[in-house]
Amino acid sequence: MSKVITSKSEDYAQWYNDLVRKGKLADHSAVKGCMIIRPNGYALWENMRNQLDLMFKETGHVNAYFPLFIPKSFLSREADHVEGFAKECAVITHYRLKNDPNGQGVIVDPDAKLEEELIVRPTSETIIWDSYKNWIQSYRDLPLKINQWANVVRWEMRTRLFLRTAEFLWQEGHTAHATKAEAVEEARLMLDVYAKFAEEYMAMPVIKGIKTPHERFAGAEDTYTIEALMQDGKALQAGTSHFLGQNFARAFDVKFMNEHNKEELVWATSWGVSTRLIGGLIMTHSDDDGLIIPPKLAATQVVVVPIPKPTPEINDVVQKIEGELKAMGISVKYDDDPKARPGFKFAEHELQGVPIRIGIGMRDLEKGVVEVARRDTKAKTSVPVEGIATYTMTLLEDIQNNLFNRAKAFRDERITVVDNFEDFKTALEEKGGFISAHWDGTTETELKIKELTKATARCIPIDNVQEEGSCVLTGKPSKQRVLFAKAY
Amino acid sequence: MSKVITSKSEDYAQWYNDLVRKGKLADHSAVKGCMIIRPNGYALWENMRNQLDLMFKETGHVNAYFPLFIPKSFLSREADHVEGFAKECAVITHYRLKNDPNGQGVIVDPDAKLEEELIVRPTSETIIWDSYKNWIQSYRDLPLKINQWANVVRWEMRTRLFLRTAEFLWQEGHTAHATKAEAVEEARLMLDVYAKFAEEYMAMPVIKGIKTPHERFAGAEDTYTIEALMQDGKALQAGTSHFLGQNFARAFDVKFMNEHNKEELVWATSWGVSTRLIGGLIMTHSDDDGLIIPPKLAATQVVVVPIPKPTPEINDVVQKIEGELKAMGISVKYDDDPKARPGFKFAEHELQGVPIRIGIGMRDLEKGVVEVARRDTKAKTSVPVEGIATYTMTLLEDIQNNLFNRAKAFRDERITVVDNFEDFKTALEEKGGFISAHWDGTTETELKIKELTKATARCIPIDNVQEEGSCVLTGKPSKQRVLFAKAY
Repeated sequence: MSKVITSKSEDYAQWYNDLVRKGKLADHSAVKGCMIIRPNGYALWENMRNQLDLMFKETGHVNAYFPLFIPKSFLSREADHVEGFAKECAVITHYRLKNDPNGQGVIVDPDAKLEEELIVRPTSETIIWDSYKNWIQSYRDLPLKINQWANVVRWEMRTRLFLRTAEFLWQEGHTAHATKAEAVEEARLMLDVYAKFAEEYMAMPVIKGIKTPHERFAGAEDTYTIEALMQDGKALQAGTSHFLGQNFARAFDVKFMNEHNKEELVWATSWGVSTRLIGGLIMTHSDDDGLIIPPKLAATQVVVVPIPKPTPEINDVVQKIEGELKAMGISVKYDDDPKARPGFKFAEHELQGVPIRIGIGMRDLEKGVVEVARRDTKAKTSVPVEGIATYTMTLLEDIQNNLFNRAKAFRDERITVVDNFEDFKTALEEKGGFISAHWDGTTETELKIKELTKATARCIPIDNVQEEGSCVLTGKPSKQRVLFAKAY
Repeated sequence: MSKVITSKSEDYAQWYNDLVRKGKLADHSAVKGCMIIRPNGYALWENMRNQLDLMFKETGHVNAYFPLFIPKSFLSREADHVEGFAKECAVITHYRLKNDPNGQGVIVDPDAKLEEELIVRPTSETIIWDSYKNWIQSYRDLPLKINQWANVVRWEMRTRLFLRTAEFLWQEGHTAHATKAEAVEEARLMLDVYAKFAEEYMAMPVIKGIKTPHERFAGAEDTYTIEALMQDGKALQAGTSHFLGQNFARAFDVKFMNEHNKEELVWATSWGVSTRLIGGLIMTHSDDDGLIIPPKLAATQVVVVPIPKPTPEINDVVQKIEGELKAMGISVKYDDDPKARPGFKFAEHELQGVPIRIGIGMRDLEKGVVEVARRDTKAKTSVPVEGIATYTMTLLEDIQNNLFNRAKAFRDERITVVDNFEDFKTALEEKGGFISAHWDGTTETELKIKELTKATARCIPIDNVQEEGSCVLTGKPSKQRVLFAKAY
């Protein structure tokens, strides 16, 4: 295996790309902007999806599936929504190819032109609310809490694997409620679910907040967000949950009879996370030797390597250890390829980010011990075979916690409170991370700050401290600080 | 709830449609030909998918995800493949909309025309083999056994929910091998996996066979199939597994160095099942009262109904029963809505096909018993609360077996061996089902039989008896019988 990963300090973007490509997580495809999620990357997505799906179901949601295509006219129904999404979409105009009469290949059959063009969904609010219209008549039909796992397409010219691609996989929740309070509560609840998932499973600390009007989802009244900090000091929007007010109910005429037999418009939320999370996971934990996957999301939690190669005695012990680990629900793989050398295997498993490696050699076995190496700190310990399962279980928890604490310390050190624009710029350039600053609340100022510094308003933290201050750019009065950062 | 399901005997197609619509499994969408899979239908698909996914992984496959879009030119690479799929596909020609300068809505931006049109995947052989070219260099890279869960689109004018829709969900396995023997073995193995799933989980008996050349997948050298029989005597192709020879390797130039350092073309298979299976499940078991779901695939296996409404005493017993059932891994739901009457609930759960209903009334409780009703036979039994979990577990197994045996008896009665064309037509019209007949092996005769009777050659059963005979239509010599049927 030729590892050759560019070091983070040399070129962070290239390091990221090397990790994704050489770790066989994803690849570019022949279709510009579309990625191939390779088995290693997809296994990670499956684990993330399964856990999220469980959390959605525990909070009372069910899954469904809506069409890939959206009639063009649907997009126009909600004014802000079309403004936000029409600019970057795949448009289907025909439904047939035919043999090229003048050549060898196939051409679009001009006789098979659609009366109305179809858009490949960039998000599904419109097609879903068109159905909700048929499903909701009375308050007894509410709340309606549906989630969909799907692919979506947003035409992108500048793409980066996982972080920004034309097609990506995601889930989108779409709920309908009888009252505003209930819808707001739902949007907040799902933000909490996302934050819990990010922190407890991905070991990725996040800040929960509200987007500024300019950064809101197209068609939302409020967008809640979780913002994470990557190792290069740039923020990553990791998930959003939208309170949509009655905008889509109005656009698709979705009304219900309330308990007093009066007709009302329905209240809505939508919320989503995507394969982008994989990019966030990589850029939160990994190092120059490869991926570091938190134990709770690792497809293989423990790899066992015979040193220097498998023997009947080693195989016997491995079988025993494997049995004990599996009995405790730990996923384990025995890398018994007799052709590859231990050093090669170590590098490969480090590249893949397997949390724990157990090395077993004959000399160790005579002493009744094995060598346990943890991926996060690279520390190695000699551990008795007796009780190895319990030791491993505790170590997996320890690694999970260490990854979170390490990332949190890194993040916390990079939230800089500033009170003037010079400090804002200095902190952003020298330290990166989040800049906590007063802002006058206007989109004009927000855009000016972006123009001058490339930093965007990431969010107004939930339960933000209210304090008098003045905008770092305009000096106008402000009631609270906002977090700015350069972002992916 | 207004039930109003058309009876099967009156109009089978309408009965099917009523069940799907009123059972809230699926709905038509605003996009012609595309369906909405509602939560009840999607829960069924999730259970099917999870079980299949497990079986794929147990047989050494991993999941990945490839792009939704296929460059138009890719389709032309394999001659038969383009012939089979280019006729019915969604074509993307543009990547942007813009505000209509003459009106209110949006129009396709003529400046955003793609240089090469993209096709929404009808199946992914081409885009996947384009990647395999980069992943396969040596025999050490083989076999490559990848599966994908995805949506695909085949433009269809005449659609039926689940059975034939423009967009549907499916899985497609795509494997690459060093030898022909290994690829054929893989194609056969996956046919066995499909058959096992159909029979053991869906309780749907199937006949394993090989397609005639005319019915082969476009680009395959052999197509293996599982064929099921629906209650109206029509066959349903429930899953196919293709031995693709070296066709796609040749089209995409995928070669490998063998152990003797010689370059060879790679051998391929592909195999898939889709949401069409849900249609097959419905038409194998269900009745005029609604769905009948086999216990192994039911989202809710047992529903408990208080009679006539919940009381503290009943709730106590239900809690105990629920605990015991869940401890045995049985999924159970307590329908404790105090407003709805038992009769309404019974009808609703029958419509949904819940395998077992437990009714609990005060009078029964005094005797220490509950009423257990099974959905398949509608039989009701008074059962002691003590030991109810074990009783239920056994009953679930019994229902699963009964459904399979019942469907198998129905199917076996409808395989008619005929030796002349008059008997062929009579059996097909009067009894329906499979007609086992000698055929001269030509596509010409196959198409003539279809024209005259609407029956198609479903398959040549695996391990078919070899016997001398003469074609029912042409009288020409034949070496084996083929199964014909009218089909979905």
